[in-house]
Order: sequence, then C-alpha cells, then structure tokens
Amino acid sequence: MALGERGGWDKSESRYCGVETDFNDDMPHLLSFNLSSGGFDFVVASLMDPNYRPSLMEKDIGGGSHVLPFAGSDLVLSPSQWSSHVVGKISSWIDLDSEDEILRTDSETTLKQEISWASHLSLQACLLPSPKGASCANYARCVNQILQSLNNMQLWLRIPLVKNDDDTTDFIPSVSTVTYAQILSWRIFSIHVYSRVRGDSWELWNSFRLLCEHHSQLSVALDVLSSLPSANSLGRWLGEPVRAAIIHTDSFLTNARGYPCLSRRHQKLITGFLNHSIQVVISGKLNHGVPSVSLDSALDHTGTNVESSQRHSLRPYLDYIAYLYQRMDPLPEQERFELSYRDFLQSPLQGHNPLFHIISDEFCTIEFSNYYLSFQPLMDNLEAQTYETFEKDSVKYIQYQRAIGNALVDRVPDEEASSLTTVLMVVGAGRGPLVRASLQAAEETGRKLKIYAVEKNPNAVVTLHVSELLGSFGDNELSPECLDGAQRFLKQDGISIPSSYTSFIQPVTASKLHNDVIPCLCAQVSPLEAISFSSKCALALQVKSHKDVVHFETAYVVKVHSVARLAPCEPVFTFTHPNFSTKKSNQRYKKLRFEIPSDTGSAMVHGFAGYFDAMLYKDVHLGIEPSTATPNMFSCCASSSVCFVESYFDTGLQIPAWFAIFFPLRTPVCIRPGSPLEVHFWRCCGSTKVWYEWCVASPNPSPVHNSNGRSYWVGL
Amino acid sequence: MALGERGGWDKSESRYCGVETDFNDDMPHLLSFNLSSGGFDFVVASLMDPNYRPSLMEKDIGGGSHVLPFAGSDLVLSPSQWSSHVVGKISSWIDLDSEDEILRTDSETTLKQEISWASHLSLQACLLPSPKGASCANYARCVNQILQSLNNMQLWLRIPLVKNDDDTTDFIPSVSTVTYAQILSWRIFSIHVYSRVRGDSWELWNSFRLLCEHHSQLSVALDVLSSLPSANSLGRWLGEPVRAAIIHTDSFLTNARGYPCLSRRHQKLITGFLNHSIQVVISGKLNHGVPSVSLDSALDHTGTNVESSQRHSLRPYLDYIAYLYQRMDPLPEQERFELSYRDFLQSPLQGHNPLFHIISDEFCTIEFSNYYLSFQPLMDNLEAQTYETFEKDSVKYIQYQRAIGNALVDRVPDEEASSLTTVLMVVGAGRGPLVRASLQAAEETGRKLKIYAVEKNPNAVVTLHVSELLGSFGDNELSPECLDGAQRFLKQDGISIPSSYTSFIQPVTASKLHNDVIPCLCAQVSPLEAISFSSKCALALQVKSHKDVVHFETAYVVKVHSVARLAPCEPVFTFTHPNFSTKKSNQRYKKLRFEIPSDTGSAMVHGFAGYFDAMLYKDVHLGIEPSTATPNMFSCCASSSVCFVESYFDTGLQIPAWFAIFFPLRTPVCIRPGSPLEVHFWRCCGSTKVWYEWCVASPNPSPVHNSNGRSYWVGL
Repeated sequence: MALGERGGWDKSESRYCGVETDFNDDMPHLLSFNLSSGGFDFVVASLMDPNYRPSLMEKDIGGGSHVLPFAGSDLVLSPSQWSSHVVGKISSWIDLDSEDEILRTDSETTLKQEISWASHLSLQACLLPSPKGASCANYARCVNQILQSLNNMQLWLRIPLVKNDDDTTDFIPSVSTVTYAQILSWRIFSIHVYSRVRGDSWELWNSFRLLCEHHSQLSVALDVLSSLPSANSLGRWLGEPVRAAIIHTDSFLTNARGYPCLSRRHQKLITGFLNHSIQVVISGKLNHGVPSVSLDSALDHTGTNVESSQRHSLRPYLDYIAYLYQRMDPLPEQERFELSYRDFLQSPLQGHNPLFHIISDEFCTIEFSNYYLSFQPLMDNLEAQTYETFEKDSVKYIQYQRAIGNALVDRVPDEEASSLTTVLMVVGAGRGPLVRASLQAAEETGRKLKIYAVEKNPNAVVTLHVSELLGSFGDNELSPECLDGAQRFLKQDGISIPSSYTSFIQPVTASKLHNDVIPCLCAQVSPLEAISFSSKCALALQVKSHKDVVHFETAYVVKVHSVARLAPCEPVFTFTHPNFSTKKSNQRYKKLRFEIPSDTGSAMVHGFAGYFDAMLYKDVHLGIEPSTATPNMFSCCASSSVCFVESYFDTGLQIPAWFAIFFPLRTPVCIRPGSPLEVHFWRCCGSTKVWYEWCVASPNPSPVHNSNGRSYWVGL
Repeated sequence: MALGERGGWDKSESRYCGVETDFNDDMPHLLSFNLSSGGFDFVVASLMDPNYRPSLMEKDIGGGSHVLPFAGSDLVLSPSQWSSHVVGKISSWIDLDSEDEILRTDSETTLKQEISWASHLSLQACLLPSPKGASCANYARCVNQILQSLNNMQLWLRIPLVKNDDDTTDFIPSVSTVTYAQILSWRIFSIHVYSRVRGDSWELWNSFRLLCEHHSQLSVALDVLSSLPSANSLGRWLGEPVRAAIIHTDSFLTNARGYPCLSRRHQKLITGFLNHSIQVVISGKLNHGVPSVSLDSALDHTGTNVESSQRHSLRPYLDYIAYLYQRMDPLPEQERFELSYRDFLQSPLQGHNPLFHIISDEFCTIEFSNYYLSFQPLMDNLEAQTYETFEKDSVKYIQYQRAIGNALVDRVPDEEASSLTTVLMVVGAGRGPLVRASLQAAEETGRKLKIYAVEKNPNAVVTLHVSELLGSFGDNELSPECLDGAQRFLKQDGISIPSSYTSFIQPVTASKLHNDVIPCLCAQVSPLEAISFSSKCALALQVKSHKDVVHFETAYVVKVHSVARLAPCEPVFTFTHPNFSTKKSNQRYKKLRFEIPSDTGSAMVHGFAGYFDAMLYKDVHLGIEPSTATPNMFSCCASSSVCFVESYFDTGLQIPAWFAIFFPLRTPVCIRPGSPLEVHFWRCCGSTKVWYEWCVASPNPSPVHNSNGRSYWVGL
C-alpha cells in the first residue's frame, strides 16, 4: 500500500516499506499476514529452513529424496507475488570465512543453493548476511562468482551502521566464540549474528566491493541501530549503492502516548534515505506498549501463528515511517523537473563553433575565421527542445538583467541617459533570452542600448532566435578563447560581463556514476534512454570488465544527487575578462589538497564534482558552487556570453554551466583522515584543441588522465 | 670497444660502457675523444647549450634567426653515430615543479624541444634529470605527454641511489633555496642538481611511473654515489626497468697502487647490474692520482680542449669496470641455454589429455575415458623439440632414479630380490627417460621390475618414445586429478612417487613482466618471436591502454630473472598421494601473509612468482622453491608422473614444473614495511574444469582475479 502520497510526484522505490520475517514454510500465509493485515509492501523472508546444513544432510541419506528444505514450492505464490513482494533472506548462520572448514564448505554450498533458488523464483533481491569477522575474502570470492552469471537480481549485503572505535557501548552479538556444533545444536529459527565489527563497518563494505570489483548488482542494506555514527560518517553512504535501511524496533523511542518514534538524528537519517530512493525495512519485535495492540500478538509478530484478522504488531512502526514520509517537504517545481536528470551522465556539450553569425539589427554576418572549430558529433547545433530547457532558468536571466542594469547605470550618468548609446554584443545569444534581458535592463534603467547578437547556429538565425555559449566548469567550453576573440571588438575601457569566473572541485563518493561510466553507453543517450541501458548494463558484465580508458578520461555533465561530498570545494582556475596582457595564456595548472574530516572515517573517491562561480558585474554573481550557489537556479549544461559593445563593444559577458561536471578517476582512490588527498588539474592548450588533464598525486599516485587530450577535448 | 669478453656468450647491453660529458658544441671531437682515445662505447652528452632559456630568447628577438642552440647540426655526425654512440642528456637545470611559473614554463618548453631534437636524431635514449623536489606531478604529466607519441626512444629518469631517512651523511646539492635568477646568472656549463630526496628515492621513481602509467619507454638511470642503501633496499631495483647505472668517480676508493677501485658492496652491486643488462656510465672528474696520467688532463676530462692523442682521464675507471666484468663467473651451460627464456612469458602448457595410451611390453592401449579433456590449442601434443628441452634435465632423472631405487629396496628385501617382481606404472612417460631411470634403478638395486608406461600422445607411441605430464606450480596441471584417476590401479599398500608436493609463492617486483602482459601478444608466441613483438609493443600504446583483463588473470610460465623477490616464499597448497580418504577434495583455499623487511623501504608488487617442491620418496625431493631448490636442475615447464604398480600398480609419481610460474596482478600493489601483504589463493574445481582465483586483501583489496576461471583454466 506504500507509505502514502507526497504531492503526487514521488514514484521512487522509497515509497515501499518492507518487514523482516523469520522462516515460515507457509509463504502464502506469511505474505497475506504481513501485506494485507500488516500494511507492508514486501517481506524480507528466509527461503530455507535455518536448521538445514548440507554436511548433515549427507549423513541422513537413507534413500530419501533430496528435496532441499525451501519455504514452499515455487507454485505456492504467483510469479508476480514472488518478484514484487519477497526479498530473499539468505541464511544468517553462514560464515564463509570461518576457520572451521566444514562450516565454511556448508556455508558456500548453502549460499549458492539459496541464490540459485531465489533466482529461479525471479526475486528482485536477496539480503546477504553481514560478514562475521574482519576478513571477508572467501565470502566475497564466492559472491563474486555468483555475480558473474546472475540474472537481474540484486544482492544486498547487510552492513551494520555502527559507530567507530571510540564508541564502546554498541554491543553486537558475536559468533567468534561460538562453535559450529553449538550453532547446529541451537536449532533456533533466526540467528541475528553480527560480527563485532572492529572500527568502521564501511571498511568491511569497501573490502567486499573492491574484491567484487564494484559490481553493479552488489549493493548495501544498512542495519540502523539505536546509536548512530557521526553525521560525516553517515554522509559517506549517500554515495554508496544503498538500497535498503533495516530499522530495528529497539532503535525507536516511545512518545508520550506510548507510540514508537525516532530521535531527531534518526528522523533526519531516515528522511535522507527516503529522499535517495532507499527502502525502509522494519525488523525486530514490538518493543512499545501501544495501547490498541494486545500483548499476546507481540510474541509472534511475524504472523506465524496469528490470525490474519489481527492487527500486525509492527504496524505502529510502519505508521511512524509513513508519517515521516508524508511530512517531507514537497519538491519544488524545478527539482521535480530535474528528477529524471539525477545522477545521469551526459556528455558535455562540446563548445561552440565560433564561426559566429553576428546578427545586429542589420542582420550582418561576420565570420571569426580564426576561431573555426573542427566539430565533434555533439558539437552540433542544439535542438529546439534543448533551448526550452535552458530558457527555463529564469533566475539566471534575472541575475544577468541586474548585472547589465547596474553596468548601464555605472557607465551612463542620468544626465546623459538620453544622449549616450551603449553598444552591447551578446556572444552566443541563443534564441534571445539574454537579448530580452538586456532590453529589459535598458528599459528599467532608462538607458539607450544597441545590441549585436552573435550566434553560430544558422537555424537559430533563421527562426530569429539565437543559441547560447556552452560550458559547465567555468572555462571548460572555450569561453576564455571565445571571449579573447571577441575582445578585439571591445574598447579599452569596455567591461566584460562576467568580469571573472572560477571553477571549483571537490572529491566525491559516487558509486552509481562510476558504474555508469561504461563505453558506448553514456555518450549519446538521453537520460530516459540511459535508464533502459542501465538494466542492460547489469547483464553486460563483459563490457564492464573491459572498461574503456576513454570513458574514464571524459568529464560528464550531471545533476549530482546520490553522491557523498567528502570535503569542501577548492577553487581551480580563474579567468578574468577583458585581459589585455600581452603574454596572456589560457593554460592553467593547479595543485589542490583536500583533507577529509577525522570523524568521517575512510572513504572512496570515485572522482570530482566540478562547479563554477561567475562574477557578472561587481557584486552580482551567478554560480553553482554549493556554498555560494545562486538559489533556485535551474541548471542544465548551458552558458551564455554577452559583450557590451561601443564602437565596437565595451563589455563581454559569459556565464557557464548549471549542472555540475564530473571528472571520473579510472581507479577509485580510498582516502583516510590524516592523509590529505593531493590532486593536480591542468588546462592545456594546443594549436587545435583545449583539454584538461588530471591526476591524484597522494596518498597514491594515479595515472595522469587524458594525456594530450587523447580522450576528451574541445576543438579550437 | 665494450668491456671485453665473458666466455664469448654475453651479447647483452651491459658490455657497453658510457661516459657522462658536459655540453660541447664540437660533437665530432667530443665523440672521437671519448670513444677512440677514451675507450668508451657511448657518451651521455648535453644536446643544448645550458645557458639557453626560452624566456630570455624572446627578449632577444631583434630580427635574428630562431635557431635553437643545439650542439651542432644533425649532419655533424652520421645517423648511426648519433644512434649508436650518443645518449641525449636533457638540460639538468629544468624544474617543472618549481613554484616559479617562468622557470616552470621554460623547463617544459626546453624539455619538449630537446626530446624533439633527440628524436629527430634517432637517439636510442635520453637521460632526464632527477625531479628537484618531493613533488613531480607536473614533470611526470609533461613526460607522459611526450611518451604518448614518442618513437622508439627510451627515456631514462635519473634517480639518485640514496640511503633512507636514517642516513644523514649523504649530502646532495639542493636547489630548493636557489632562485631562477641565480641559476640564470651562474652561466655554468653543467649543473648537477639533485633534490634532497626526503626519505627514499624509490618513492620518487614510483610516483613518476605511476603518473606515467608504467609506460614501457620510461626507465631508470641510477646514480651510484659513495654510500649505499641496505642490500634489501637495493634489491628492489632489480625488478624495476633500470637501464643504466651512473657511477660517480667519487664513489671509487684508491687501491695501494693509486688506482681507483670499488668497495666490496659497490663491486657486488655493479656485478649485479652487469648481470641484468644494465649499462654502466662513468661520471665526474678524475679523483685518483693514477701514475700514468698527467695532472693537466684531469682538469678537462671531457675532452673539450684536450688532444685526442692524450689518454682520457677517466680511463682508469673504465678499466676497473672492465676488470669487474671480465672477472665475473662464466654462466654454466644450463644458464646459457636458458638465456633466451629470461623474463619471457609463456602460456602454461595446459595439462594433459588423459586419454592415456598405456604402453606395456605388450603395447596394449587402454582409454581412460572418464579423463577425457576438452583441449585448448596449447594443450595439444608436444613437438619433438620440446621433449629435447625437457630431457636435458639430467638432475631430475637422477633424483627419480634415487627415489625409485630407495623404494624398491624398502619394498623388496634382499632375500626376495630374485622372486618378487614390482609392477611400476609410469604416468605420462614421455619419450622414455623416466622409464630408463626406472630400469637403471632396478638394475642398480638388483630388483625385478615390470613397467607400464602411460602416455596420451599417440605420436610419441609411434616412435617408441613417450611424453611426460606437465605442470609448473605443483598442482596446476591437474596432477592431483590425474593421479587420483591412476590411484584406482594402485594397491592399498602401494606407494606414490612423489608422495606429496607443495606449491609456494612470493611477491615480486617485475616491471618487465607486467608490461609484457598485453592482450594477444604473449599467448602464442615463442621467446624469439616475443622479442620482436616487444619492440612493436613499445609503439602500440593504444593496445596497452586497453589492457585486457583476461591476460592479467592468466598465470604464465617464465624463467624469472629481472625480478625483485620481496619476501621469502610461503607454502600454498599441498597434495599427498595416494589419498584413499572418502571425502577427498582437490579444492583448496589458503590465506597468506607476507611482511617485507623494514630496511627494504616500500616496494611495488606486480604479482607472485610461484614454485613447487615435491617429496619423491622419503628424503629424496625435487623442486624449484628457491630456498630448497635442487641445484643445477634444468627447468622448463615440464613434469612427469610415474606410478609404481603391482597388480595393477603399487606406486605413482609426479613431478611438476621447472621454470617458475607468474601470477600477475591487474593493478600492481604498493606495499610498505609494517603493513603486511595479505593474499588469498583458491584452487577451484568445477564439473568441467579446474582453475585458480587469487586476490590481495590487504593493505588494499584487489578484485578477485579469474572469477569462475573466466580467463584461465584447465579443462577436465
């Protein structure tokens, strides 16, 4: 029945809430109890009798049939019931890294049998128990083998969200002192065994996924317990492939009326999860004396022996999560518009062909032949629909209008308003919004203005609209070179809008983006196509294992959402216009150091999110650098360039991109607090092209990416 | 004239000795002085006037021609003189990581101009000055750009062989406090500037080559100074691509007669270099009062103003190196035979087709149909020449003969020698040497023997010769499975020769092997073909950048020579024969930990060298594990299997490989003292094949290699 409605827009997975159950061989009853009377959307249910051990089976041979003790045949539920409402819970007793060879072998056999069965049932996911000790290599090796030939099923590795070393109050039951014989003799229905994770459970996940080579079908189910790690430590998980948050009933508090509720920190965490398509699963027993529930039912909360007409003992927890969900702020229109762009890589629009058509009121056309670009396919003219997207960003044009207005008033005193005409050159004028903004600024300030609109797209000219210059990292789309070219039309006292722009980067965990950087898939597909590609990729393992260097040396425009920002942004390159220096060069080199906060723990850097900030005119700025971003600015890989002109031009203006840019690392780098991440970025200019190179120098040097612009460049 | 003759066999590069000279614009004189009168084979000479600075040139424009100040035109020497006798020495003042932007830009311009010139001259190599500081990212970025489009030329990065932190007596001139203006004002001919390398100069090299992505044309020239790091620290360099050792005259001592000589440690180091095709270059001034040399000439040792008839002042140093070279022990015949196999990867011969032909004295043929193998191309029958190679290994057969003799005496008391006949089954008998050894053992001990020779190769049967079972890592060629199969013919009290075998691994630095693991090149070429491939590879950069996972997940048979063994071997898997246990499995799992000695410093692990040791019978063993290796055993990817049989067989015997095996790592792992290397190895058995998987778990987890045997396996 889902958690409810959230303004009608949220179609994400996080609407659905599950419940963890014990083994029950009456699956139809288990399902109807938890779904119909419990209100849950799915169950996380054991598929096999927890008493089963392959090594004991062989002793019992006695001529009997070798039917494995699965929970009912595949026919007890319909195929769609299995796939929509059941997540398979792999036997939690398994321990593939035990010192006991029999337990290890039994564990491997059982794991493979259960996954094979779940796969036969077409389940969407299986929950893998948490590794029992600090070492997980054999468990990971076996899961990795399974992943090589798995259908579409996801494997959720259960990882407890425990505090770091410094906290000693989190006791987690350990099996380190329990023998296999004891486990066998317990014959209990459910063994919740966690390792006493030494230090940081993220490390355990990190080892496991590295051993499994970032496989896209391996993801995380986080166990949320009563105490939580620091906010920085939790923040790392937003860049990891977390699919589910398993909230234990004993992490709930009790409110004044006896109902379960969560601490503020827990609320914030769960809200964050719901906002990142992470599903909630309730686990545990009723711990709260909720008035309307009879105490008897609390003992059998999973519905094993309870009438289905009876209210589900865990319903109050579900109701509380639904309350949190419905209470979340509705997304603003702009965010809703951008939903489908979240975390989808787009090839950056590759600069302009500055074979500009200058359109003035006379529609004269001038060719800047020295700026002719040799076009790449994506450097082609934009389609009409793309212009629509760009032009939605009204905040951008308001900022331009303010900057132009301020500049006009500064340049032309009131007393000369009727006599002096300012000449403005709009470089990359698009279909006209900047021209419109300029005209409005002139009208508002009562100044006279003559506009030259420069546009390279002949189709835009035909329809009397014009395109805009492009960019996403300040200077990444040749704005310095274009404006240098336009500068020769600028008077010595002319001004440029923007007067300067600076690019910024920060290291991010971005497992989805890393997995999406796959040859031939990202380059030329729209976000919607990319969705269908995404599931195809899951199968195309060969493709991933042959990762193409070219695609890991390309920067992508992306609306980053499921990423963890590991450190504050640092400035990279700055360009100032106009620049009349004789030895000017648009080459740049910057060494950057990032230090992650000590309470974050270690983290994986998949690459760098890049932003820009542009000073338009004096204090009017425009940008997407998170700490200073212009609020509510619609952001999509677009930029514009305007030059104020007076015989010819007095000012030029250029603002770049709106979504962030993502510079991937071919091999993700693990960083630890106290070991700064040293990164080098170059902006290189050749005779025919401009490109970036980048590398990590510390803690471990990476290859220099994109040497000579071999993978990614913009033609001059 | 080379260093002399060493038994007429040594055709390696290390016969040639060079001399480092200062800038001289009279190249023909420089060459004739150092070669004809000095006796050197080549010069390491500056190509450009050290006073040149691009930024100063531009100031001097004044209409003059812009000819760069190179040392003579390309026509002053013949093309073959340039390429055979000149190594270009890049201006040592360059500092691409300076804080001074003008120096940085000048350095980049000069570096590119000089390399471009050297490349035009078809020089074989250029010597790059050592990075000036701890940071080398911009220098490496620029060199990496150059490498992307370089012809066959090698770039030798000069790295001082300095002691670690603990040693503070090595003073190396530092430029950290020198301004660019000072450098310009010095106007000196040669500035030997080294960074005060903090800690370990290997780290500097390691950063540089990681940034350049292990490029095969980037190598090392080591500066040998008067004090040396520890033996373990030096040992690392044997696995790195060291091409030259530049020995400074002040690292020489003076002997009783006033001549230069080297300390024992230096002698050992230089001998080691000469044995690894590393060329010696003499550098510096005459520091020794050698009687026959006039003191005047000492001042102009590079020959700038010295008559060519005069004896070269550095000649005594060259003579001493030649003396060391000629004094080296000649290689034993076996080593000479193996020279062409050194460090060449060969695909492991992939097991046997156990469709055995059992050849007894009746030549009956039995098919073991349950052991039929689906053949890979390389699993085909061996050619006659390969047998020749195997059979050269007489020590192997002597050990077998001893083991068989001892077993015969143990089984048959003297008093029954004439009545009891022992039945012997030779599994994988090849062309007969083990049969011959068995017959000799019987004759020697006076025991009666009946032999069944089992061989799968029908051609070997036709010629009345027989082949041998293959293997290189103890169990890697299905010996356990083959002997398990043969075991059903073995009596309960039968014995197997060997009674057990164990595989071993150790982590190695092996940059050549790493660079040779390139798709499609290694798999099916002989060592001689591989040589020509090797130079083709240098050009085929695209190929390298698309490194194929499959080739990095394959184990190779290789005569390891230029490798650094970083830690003692650890045992991996052991198999014992006969094995009558009912639940026996040939699956294995081993976790290994390696600790590198603290005085080694950090080191790069490119993979693991694998060996075996086999217990033939009681104390008679045979193996290649370095600490216990059978001396003088010729070793080439061969193994044999013999079973003693009595109605049918009483004993079985199997010995595996002779060269080592190499398990690569897809991404080399850097290890540091105090952080153990944790490695996991699995031997996995499926219904149709047997394979290994391996991974590094610590310090940083690697992917599990060869999951499900996707890249490398042996069919059952």
